[in-house]
Amino acid sequence: MDFNPLPKDVISAKARRTTEPPIAWLMRMPFDDPQIISLAAGFVDQESLPAEEVAECVHEILAVEKNRSALQYGTSQGFFPLRQEVSRILERQGAGKSVSPDEILLTAGSQQILHLVTDVLINEGDIVLVEDPTYFVYMGTLQAAGARVIGVPVDDEGILPEALEDKIRFLERSAGLENLKLVYLMTYFQNPTGACTAWHRKERLLEILRNHCDLGRTTFIIEDAAYKELRFEGGEIPYLKALDRDNSSVVLTGSFSKSFSPGLRVGFGYLPRPLLEHVLRQKGNEDFGSSNFCQHIVRQAIITGRYAKHVEMLKAKYRAKRDLMLECLARYFPHEVEVIRPLGGLYLWASLPRGLNTGARGQLFREATQKKVLYVPGELCYCEEPGIEKPTNNLRISFGMVTEDNIVEGMARLGEAVSQVLR
Amino acid sequence: MDFNPLPKDVISAKARRTTEPPIAWLMRMPFDDPQIISLAAGFVDQESLPAEEVAECVHEILAVEKNRSALQYGTSQGFFPLRQEVSRILERQGAGKSVSPDEILLTAGSQQILHLVTDVLINEGDIVLVEDPTYFVYMGTLQAAGARVIGVPVDDEGILPEALEDKIRFLERSAGLENLKLVYLMTYFQNPTGACTAWHRKERLLEILRNHCDLGRTTFIIEDAAYKELRFEGGEIPYLKALDRDNSSVVLTGSFSKSFSPGLRVGFGYLPRPLLEHVLRQKGNEDFGSSNFCQHIVRQAIITGRYAKHVEMLKAKYRAKRDLMLECLARYFPHEVEVIRPLGGLYLWASLPRGLNTGARGQLFREATQKKVLYVPGELCYCEEPGIEKPTNNLRISFGMVTEDNIVEGMARLGEAVSQVLR
Repeated sequence: MDFNPLPKDVISAKARRTTEPPIAWLMRMPFDDPQIISLAAGFVDQESLPAEEVAECVHEILAVEKNRSALQYGTSQGFFPLRQEVSRILERQGAGKSVSPDEILLTAGSQQILHLVTDVLINEGDIVLVEDPTYFVYMGTLQAAGARVIGVPVDDEGILPEALEDKIRFLERSAGLENLKLVYLMTYFQNPTGACTAWHRKERLLEILRNHCDLGRTTFIIEDAAYKELRFEGGEIPYLKALDRDNSSVVLTGSFSKSFSPGLRVGFGYLPRPLLEHVLRQKGNEDFGSSNFCQHIVRQAIITGRYAKHVEMLKAKYRAKRDLMLECLARYFPHEVEVIRPLGGLYLWASLPRGLNTGARGQLFREATQKKVLYVPGELCYCEEPGIEKPTNNLRISFGMVTEDNIVEGMARLGEAVSQVLR
Repeated sequence: MDFNPLPKDVISAKARRTTEPPIAWLMRMPFDDPQIISLAAGFVDQESLPAEEVAECVHEILAVEKNRSALQYGTSQGFFPLRQEVSRILERQGAGKSVSPDEILLTAGSQQILHLVTDVLINEGDIVLVEDPTYFVYMGTLQAAGARVIGVPVDDEGILPEALEDKIRFLERSAGLENLKLVYLMTYFQNPTGACTAWHRKERLLEILRNHCDLGRTTFIIEDAAYKELRFEGGEIPYLKALDRDNSSVVLTGSFSKSFSPGLRVGFGYLPRPLLEHVLRQKGNEDFGSSNFCQHIVRQAIITGRYAKHVEMLKAKYRAKRDLMLECLARYFPHEVEVIRPLGGLYLWASLPRGLNTGARGQLFREATQKKVLYVPGELCYCEEPGIEKPTNNLRISFGMVTEDNIVEGMARLGEAVSQVLR
């Protein structure tokens, strides 16, 4: 798209730092050519979206109960009965002993909480530690806020504690630790690697941060659990938030987008109170509350048991799609390709032999687009840091939105492209 | 509420400037005491909310058409078919000869556009001209952005052109005109005065701004038309936007909150393209799109004719409520009280004799709360400017949410309070 921007001296410093979302161009490609199979999109499975469930919930709210207040303004913090349900769910999941609905915030997807917390804490030059690779949309938000983003390497159990300690020591030496405002972690089926943070890692991470930082005063942790509900294998791992017993240091964010419907845009956060108050004020200025109607629908789905049932169905669905994708990987891809086997979520993270370039300007991406299949180049998920070279041999593929047929066809095409490049 | 804020050196400069919404305390009072009648809330009429219409639309989308994509992610800019409907409505209303859906943005109420445009344009110290009095929620947004807000006096035809010219000349002399980024106008049934900007004033305002400012490059106008659909008397006045023929200088904002349902949180903007692109990038970072489902509902209501029918019904409803409120004013209030007779919208702006104080710490407010009736003290709607004294003798009362019975009872109580203070 042609973008004729306003002069730099006219727009705000923030707008100057706000670039186009990194994969917007990639998302547009299938619209221009419907033959393209996108393994890039992080959308959810289409045919399992809860059409009957939502229709029934709306009927019950509006036609049976005649509850017109669902169509009236809500509050900035969100519909109290849904906040109650969220706090009960979080209590049951062990996020806290006693989770108060007053500490829950409902937003337009959990993305809005990431944005609000960032905007409330970050001044230009403040530091944010993230997993490397991490969720690229949030990196755009951080860049717009003027944050200095520092990546900490991960393996299939999450952030490496030694690497975290190294980065913190480096910040101590360079006298930047008081500017460390946020540590951003996706602890369940991380986007893009699909890995979960192991429990022993959560304990160790918090220990390190408590030892070095003024947690809950200067530095906060965001535990982004957007994909948590979509575990289809393996035992549950407690929240990092469970270790924040007085709700002082960890912002837990979650969402009904992956586990129910992204079209409703209902996300939630469980926030330390002082931080929540700042966030609420800002949300008041930005939209004074997200859709009250959608919040009523989600609550109705929960209290009628439809939500829990739907999540069970989804898990089976995604499990089958993941299995199919792994099967296709074994069938169509050269054996040199390695993957982290995800136990939930929507993503598969594949590594080609070192030296091979998956980037948008590399040979593989060219071959793949010629064969009309798309993936997310791994380089888009790594931090830009001066002096640190990004790995260029990874790619993210999603079994979220793509149909079973297209998984087979798309993986065949992509496998062939990889084979060609490896030859 | 007890607010234990984070230390100032921890939060962002923006968070430091973000105060509690000015009437939050006022909005909480009826929750604590249900005997209170609030003529303060700007909510819409409850019993006319479109419960059947929304239920039918949802049934058609999800059960009949089985359109699951309404529950999938949408785009940051919003559902294209709704953008098409909005552009058709705006064309029919004369906002432009040919309004492209590509220049329409859908948001969480029009408030979110006010926020986004402000965030994209305003650096600390930049100047915004507003009507004085004006919409207090937006003043909070401007304060958080660090804007220097300058009020321009109004009468019942909108901003006074001579006063606008004076302020602009003053800015020219003090070399601040290049920092004038926004001129914010509510041109229909303004909050709080209920007045519309007359057509000859719109022509004159634009002429003045074109003569003095680099409109569409440095300075933009926001025409907030949130209440436009609720005209129940008098002839239509064309948009100021109609004078911005090349869509370069005026951001037009509108909303389905007042004319259909605020619980859906669907607002829209018609923006100059360069500005829109910056806004879209930022919206991508903040929430990557508002509820796709709600946008489908509003579109369904429009294309089935339900929306237009509902608006007609609402006009009759609010007209009757306004008439009742004016009747009660004549019956219960001393004759010294003056009002602007609103031809639409939700508000009545009353002026007491000079010297009488309607403020939250004044005698009238005390009397009124003792009698369990609430209004918005007019002083909250005026700009804070050093050296300029605010009028303190006005009050805003709304016939929006309050029932007919409570209009009579509330106005009787308030009239008695006014009489007591005047004695």
